[in-house]
This record gives sequence, C-alpha cells and structure tokens, in this order.
Amino acid sequence: MTDPDIKARLFVAAAIDAGLRLTLPSAQTHYLLGVLRLKAGDAVALFNGRDGEWLAHLGVQTRKACALDIERRLKPQRPSADLWLLFAPIKRARLDFIAEKATELGVTGLQAVFTQFTVITRVNVERLRANAIEAAEQCGRLDVPEIFAPAKLDDVLDTWPNGRRLLFCDESGASPPIVPALASENVGQNRAWAVLIGPEGGFHPDERARLRAFPGTVSVGLGPRILRADTAAIAALALWQVLIGDWRAVT
Amino acid sequence: MTDPDIKARLFVAAAIDAGLRLTLPSAQTHYLLGVLRLKAGDAVALFNGRDGEWLAHLGVQTRKACALDIERRLKPQRPSADLWLLFAPIKRARLDFIAEKATELGVTGLQAVFTQFTVITRVNVERLRANAIEAAEQCGRLDVPEIFAPAKLDDVLDTWPNGRRLLFCDESGASPPIVPALASENVGQNRAWAVLIGPEGGFHPDERARLRAFPGTVSVGLGPRILRADTAAIAALALWQVLIGDWRAVT
Repeated sequence: MTDPDIKARLFVAAAIDAGLRLTLPSAQTHYLLGVLRLKAGDAVALFNGRDGEWLAHLGVQTRKACALDIERRLKPQRPSADLWLLFAPIKRARLDFIAEKATELGVTGLQAVFTQFTVITRVNVERLRANAIEAAEQCGRLDVPEIFAPAKLDDVLDTWPNGRRLLFCDESGASPPIVPALASENVGQNRAWAVLIGPEGGFHPDERARLRAFPGTVSVGLGPRILRADTAAIAALALWQVLIGDWRAVT
Repeated sequence: MTDPDIKARLFVAAAIDAGLRLTLPSAQTHYLLGVLRLKAGDAVALFNGRDGEWLAHLGVQTRKACALDIERRLKPQRPSADLWLLFAPIKRARLDFIAEKATELGVTGLQAVFTQFTVITRVNVERLRANAIEAAEQCGRLDVPEIFAPAKLDDVLDTWPNGRRLLFCDESGASPPIVPALASENVGQNRAWAVLIGPEGGFHPDERARLRAFPGTVSVGLGPRILRADTAAIAALALWQVLIGDWRAVT
C-alpha cells in the first residue's frame, strides 16, 4: 500500500473519474465487507488499466451492496513494458502460480499454447484471469495482463505479430546462456517481446527447429539443471525485466 | 533423465560404490514399486551428494522390499556454487514451493529466519527437507541442499560465517537495482553467498539498518512492483546464478 490509510486495492472495469459513485459487483462487495470488514468512510485504491490509480471512500452500504465514492487521482497511468508469457499448460496449482508470478513480474499478456508434448488439454481462462487480477491488486500494478485464448503453438507462430521478439527458453542445452544472448539485443528500442516456456516433456525436435529459425527469436538456455516449467517461467521473466525491462533503472 | 533407459533418480544417504547392493527404505521402495511400477532389472540413477551419479539395477524384490545393485559411475561429483537462501517463513504451500524452487536454482543451504514482522512461528524442517530431496532428484543435481535449523535473524547475524557475502533483498525501494549492484562484485572469486528474503510485511527499520551496515552485505531492490516473498526468492536466486553462479558459463 502506498498510503497507510488505504485498506484495499481493487481492479475495476468501469471508467474512473473524480466525483463518480461506483457500485461494486457482489464478489468485490463480499471481499471488502465480509473478508476485510471495511466500514463506511474507509479508503480504497482503484485502478482500471487506463486511468491511473485513484482514491475512493466506501459510501453507504448494506450487507450485500456497497458503493465507492471516487475522490482524486493518486498516480497517473504508466505504460508497462510490452512482454507476453506463452506457456504450455501444466497442472492447475502450478498454473495458478504462473499467472500470479507472471503478473507480479510485469507481463502484459498471458497465453497457454499447446505443443506436441503437452499433456493437459483444457485451460480455465477465467481462473487464469482471476489469479492475474488478484496478483495485480496485490503487487501495485496499474494494469492487468490480457489473457489470450489458448491456441496451438503452430497457429500462434503462423499469426505472429510483426516485429515482436521471441525469447525461446530451450531446455535442450544447445542454446547459449541468457545474459550474453540478450546483451547483444538493442535494449533501448522498447520493443515488444514474448517469453516461451515449453511443457515438462520439452519441445518436439520439429518445434525446436521451427522456433530456432523463427524470425526475431533469441534462443537461450537457463542453467545446468532441469527446471520445472513454472520455475523456468519465473526465472526467464525476472531475467528479462533485469536485462531489458523495468528493473533496469529503478528499484 | 540423462539416459533414456533410466526409470528413476534417487537420493540415498548411504555410500555408493560399484558392486554394492543397497536395500531401500520403505518410502523409496513404495515409490519405485508402487508409484513407478518398476520391475527387476530396471535401471535407476543414484546420488548421495558425495560420490557422483551412479547406475544401479533393481535386484530381487518382494512387494515391500527391494534392493539396488550398483553398477558403475555415470557422472563425477561436481562442487555446487556455495549459495544459501535465508527466508522468513510463510504459509505452507508457499514454503513447499520455495524449497522446491530454491533447490532447482542450486542453493546449497536453506534456513528459515524469524524476523520482527514474521507471523509464522513454526517451521516443519522435515517437510522442507523432503521437498528439497524430491526437487534434487527431479532436476538432476548431484547433491541436496542442507536444511539448517530455523533461527532468529539477530542470532543468525550474530553467528555469521566469516567471509560469506549477504545479498539483502530490500523491499523498501531505497536500494539500487541488482545488476549494477552485483556487477561491481568480483564474481571470479567463487565466494560463499547467502540471499535474504523478508516476510510479507517487510523488515523492521532496525533490522533494515543492521542489515545495510552488516559487513559484506550487498543491498538490492527487485524492481518497481511489490513481490510476494516466494517470487522475490526465486527471482533473486535466478539473478544470482546468472550474474555470479553456474548459469554464467554453461547452459
């Protein structure tokens, strides 16, 4: 919390502006009244990904409905470094974890990709989104990562956005370490990137060959040990932020 | 697995040498026979933290006991970079997670430290150790991190080992980013280090002052967002391995 008087931090979909009164949906009402036990007049911070962070106060309330009276802007909206995480889906608890950690580490987009060795066939997109929102509220971000519909790796590559770089985390041991590989990139360009993490069984050789040859790909290794997919995702995102993203300048 | 024929990888406490027959405890017997459904003659890799990695074959078995016949050494023991993780204890699921991830990221020692704002008062050391062993078996390490008895932060600092550097992850925003802070360190010296992560509520100002002034401390910030303790631990360990440890040279 940036202000000791602020009791909660909420992501809302609605537009935010001074003087507006916002009626909250039942889940957020329950969180504020039932879980945090806030009272009328308590201060809450709001963000919607567009208008910065705002101070609001809990207005009239019943046990099942509450409204927030929006007062003033606390922080302007800042653009986030444009970083996606593409991951082969894994077991639910680890997927919750990836959504939470990737959000804390600043990703702006999250997508499950099905590879040839992916075992899981269904991904709960709403659950991913709920985890991302909760993590964004917790970590002080002013936006929430976009959750893209799950897709096959080949389809994702067939429709790859022009100019977006791909950091391919290659578990085969054949790619160079991440620091020298990224050090030669022009980090000042503020380009869009995506980090790609494979399934526990690794990539198929055909996938690996396509990824290595894909335009704009940087293939990197992540050390001498075999990392689980969630460990690899967190490590790669932290390293990207440190070498290219928003951990470089400020603390 | 380094060899496609190897069906499991086990940490054992006993000495390993060619020609020895090893009787396994009941938990490992259950894992090999009940969970993995191995049969007589199947290949298993063994390590004990001292003698490298060895090939063994499942010998005679009953449903409740099995023995491994040790054949030959597959890999020599390599020394691990000397890196401890000291962490304020957190909720159980996240603690399991820290033990697993820290092991994958190569720590050689793990210790829970109680700080002034630590809420949790009990730590299950055996559970930490079991998680570390399982992760070591999974990630291809040849050793298992040592689990030290939990202790108060002040006591840990009072008995600090001579010459061990301390990477203090300072959530206050007052410390420099990790890359320039560690870039000035003499990474070739192969020194012993420890990474320290505080509780969710942060450090007390007195603790922070003592840590900043502590001999051999490097205080660093981990980016502009508020990280959960487990995210901070994983990020800091990956960054240490990349900048100072064993992710520098090889992939």
